[in-house]
Amino acid sequence: MRGKETTLEELARELGGRVEGDPLAVVRGLNTLTDALEDEVTFLTDIKYKGLLKDSKALAVIADRAVRGVDKSFIITENPSLGYAKAVAHFAAKPLPEPGLSPRAEVAGSAKIGRDVAVMPFAYVGERAVIGDFCVLYPHTYVGRDSSVGEGTILFPGAVVMDEVKIGRNVVLHPNAVVGSDGFGYARDKEVYVKIPQVGTVEIEDGVEVGAGTTIDRASLGVTRLGRGTKIDNLVQVAHNVVTGENCILVGQCGLSGSVTLGKNVIVAGQAGVAQRLSIGDFAVIAPKAGVAKPVARGQQVAGVPAIDARVHLKALTVFKDLPELKRALRSLRKKVEQLRKKVDEG
Amino acid sequence: MRGKETTLEELARELGGRVEGDPLAVVRGLNTLTDALEDEVTFLTDIKYKGLLKDSKALAVIADRAVRGVDKSFIITENPSLGYAKAVAHFAAKPLPEPGLSPRAEVAGSAKIGRDVAVMPFAYVGERAVIGDFCVLYPHTYVGRDSSVGEGTILFPGAVVMDEVKIGRNVVLHPNAVVGSDGFGYARDKEVYVKIPQVGTVEIEDGVEVGAGTTIDRASLGVTRLGRGTKIDNLVQVAHNVVTGENCILVGQCGLSGSVTLGKNVIVAGQAGVAQRLSIGDFAVIAPKAGVAKPVARGQQVAGVPAIDARVHLKALTVFKDLPELKRALRSLRKKVEQLRKKVDEG
Amino acid sequence: MRGKETTLEELARELGGRVEGDPLAVVRGLNTLTDALEDEVTFLTDIKYKGLLKDSKALAVIADRAVRGVDKSFIITENPSLGYAKAVAHFAAKPLPEPGLSPRAEVAGSAKIGRDVAVMPFAYVGERAVIGDFCVLYPHTYVGRDSSVGEGTILFPGAVVMDEVKIGRNVVLHPNAVVGSDGFGYARDKEVYVKIPQVGTVEIEDGVEVGAGTTIDRASLGVTRLGRGTKIDNLVQVAHNVVTGENCILVGQCGLSGSVTLGKNVIVAGQAGVAQRLSIGDFAVIAPKAGVAKPVARGQQVAGVPAIDARVHLKALTVFKDLPELKRALRSLRKKVEQLRKKVDEG
Repeated sequence: MRGKETTLEELARELGGRVEGDPLAVVRGLNTLTDALEDEVTFLTDIKYKGLLKDSKALAVIADRAVRGVDKSFIITENPSLGYAKAVAHFAAKPLPEPGLSPRAEVAGSAKIGRDVAVMPFAYVGERAVIGDFCVLYPHTYVGRDSSVGEGTILFPGAVVMDEVKIGRNVVLHPNAVVGSDGFGYARDKEVYVKIPQVGTVEIEDGVEVGAGTTIDRASLGVTRLGRGTKIDNLVQVAHNVVTGENCILVGQCGLSGSVTLGKNVIVAGQAGVAQRLSIGDFAVIAPKAGVAKPVARGQQVAGVPAIDARVHLKALTVFKDLPELKRALRSLRKKVEQLRKKVDEG
Repeated sequence: MRGKETTLEELARELGGRVEGDPLAVVRGLNTLTDALEDEVTFLTDIKYKGLLKDSKALAVIADRAVRGVDKSFIITENPSLGYAKAVAHFAAKPLPEPGLSPRAEVAGSAKIGRDVAVMPFAYVGERAVIGDFCVLYPHTYVGRDSSVGEGTILFPGAVVMDEVKIGRNVVLHPNAVVGSDGFGYARDKEVYVKIPQVGTVEIEDGVEVGAGTTIDRASLGVTRLGRGTKIDNLVQVAHNVVTGENCILVGQCGLSGSVTLGKNVIVAGQAGVAQRLSIGDFAVIAPKAGVAKPVARGQQVAGVPAIDARVHLKALTVFKDLPELKRALRSLRKKVEQLRKKVDEG
Repeated sequence: MRGKETTLEELARELGGRVEGDPLAVVRGLNTLTDALEDEVTFLTDIKYKGLLKDSKALAVIADRAVRGVDKSFIITENPSLGYAKAVAHFAAKPLPEPGLSPRAEVAGSAKIGRDVAVMPFAYVGERAVIGDFCVLYPHTYVGRDSSVGEGTILFPGAVVMDEVKIGRNVVLHPNAVVGSDGFGYARDKEVYVKIPQVGTVEIEDGVEVGAGTTIDRASLGVTRLGRGTKIDNLVQVAHNVVTGENCILVGQCGLSGSVTLGKNVIVAGQAGVAQRLSIGDFAVIAPKAGVAKPVARGQQVAGVPAIDARVHLKALTVFKDLPELKRALRSLRKKVEQLRKKVDEG
């Protein structure tokens, strides 16, 4: 990626790092170790790739320390991943659509649109909805009546915000994400299911991202809430009345059932699921494909279906593939014991 | 939730229950045990929450019997969940969009639109499509050519009904649901996959709900059919030629492969899957995350991957985490037997 | 399915087969063994259904050999599935929307639209986008700025192609599919996640199909690439920087994590997942619901979570349900050994 030309010194300042090497060298882009050009900066976020450094054409490297015997400049920073993120932001400068209200958008007369908002063709904004400054509503987005969207929030194409939902600032709804659909709630009347109207709402706090095709249901009563800074990948299901703390990570295709509560900084890995009403403590980690069927304590790591402590699960797994051997061994031992018994009885 | 003011007596009549306490007391809303105000009704659908009753401010409680020592009125009904559903419907009265054909919708000249239908901006209705009375087509919905949508059906934003599909009455397609996409069918020609045109259709019977982002494929030949009253949660995959009976429940992120047949009142829990062509009997229950690889009998409950009888599975699971211990125990027993054998041989 | 009337001889030629029976018999449609009418052709792609032949009304049968004692004509072809696919294509002739640029579509002035393209109402084409000849953009489709779509490609309703993405020829994006959404990439800054701008792209080669609601993320840097002829089912997640070879099959609800590489003709079955950065060899098969946590060799078949060799997994599974019995057997054997030891010691 090519972008805004800068000296290493300036770039290091933006990244909160310091230069080892030529501070006045000029960089014009950023790329991977293997793809970087002679005037580009690269990054070493995992020391195991350090062998690729010597063949890299890159002028400079973002790393947590200089690597000996490599004839390159370094930008040294404690957190090279973060440095990399900032460097990408420096060079990327992805242009957002120009502000402006397309005459082909449909905006209710009672809606309030902030300043410098882009409302693109075929976007729809309902009665009394409020759209904050600097928002972008791409084509085919829907903001229902009485909903609000905070400053700087982006709705990518096809994103849906149903009625009476509250979205914070600097939130991103990726394409075809849905917020505020009905929770899955029915009362059973003999063999028939009778719908319980879903009259709660959703609140999405500042800085949350909702992945493409992900669905966030509104609460039955009360509120489904996504805590500040929570990041959600694609095709994730968040059911009615779920509440997450700040900075949770929900990886692709995982699902949270109704009324699940996550603490802060919880990680739910890909294709995992959590059963209804369970509470998951701060900093807990749920392994990929786990099926959580009881509460998880603060900091605990769980795996398996149903999920148990991840280390216990790992030990059991190592035996799993030996089960046929185990069964044979038991059978053969049983025979030996039987022979022995006969011998003892006879002798 | 606040709504239409009513006496307990009137509300009990709507719910099919009877009052214990003051029939003329006036209620103005409904809420949970903890959130209800002094002029609101609450509900006790699970007796284990009865301890919360004494601190609840609620005026009255929907329950299957009066709770002793609690100074509140009760609406007594056999099925408090159903009573709750009806009470929510009483107070909620969510307004639907006003009927009317937006000049910014695109409706083919040969399409037939019933009376009191709302066709909102950017909705699309194809040639010869038929939309029944009282339907609502939200923005960005698509009804393909030669499809029909029955009376009172709602298509939420982004819902797609492809061509030649038949949707019944009082059906709800939640945001970005897809009905009638191509089945996943290919013939293999050496290493290349050749598409089999998917020329069947989909029929969705009355009262079905299809969750946000859920996909229902059309049949290869013939029909994919969802039985009356079946309720489908978000991000569920229903493949070509699936047929479900009445009142099935498909929970979030589960998947039915091609030509699977469900009886009536089958429950498929979250993230479960059923392999192709299998038949699942009436009232069967498939546990969360189960992978069904053989037919399931009427009323059977299955769990695991591949799914087996749920009780057998549960018993095996309880041993699973002890596998390393089991292996050690076997090894130690083997040593003992060996020592014993030597002793016997020598003695 | 009824369609273009033809003689068996003509049809056999289209299918690359030969007639056994009356070459001049006229067929007017195609259907299953049980549903075919007297003037229709049917197919026998799996010999186990041959018992249904005698009750079928069909005039002729597509099969890999004639079945004795059945009074029908046959179209004999080595690959009856492929013959069936071609026969469906003969009779189906699904009409595509007429070419033409709807005045209600929004096409940027700098976009290039090929000839005989259908751009339907509410479709959106961004600046400098290029749409090849014979493409169809259904309503509510989005093609972002600087993206290109090859000849003959179809975007079904709600399909989204984000900015700077390259789509090949004869590609199909089914309803609400998303291509080019941001990868899920964040740098951690203490407890907070900082977005890494996703500046890579997506390239979809010729003949790929992307299922309804499926999401294909753009690369962080570089490219996410789907190899020629790859077929993807509904609700599949393909993360940033995934690269697939030609003719891969990704079945419904499976997921590929970031930087996963598939060889050619790999099959990933339903609800399976592959962890990040792993490499899967040509012709490998990943079983339904498998969780792949290490590389898979060419031609290998894996199953389970974590996935191991499919045969090893199957053998272990057969013991799994006997675990409680195994545990009991071990305990009982231990008692016996103990009694025996006493006896030996005492005797």
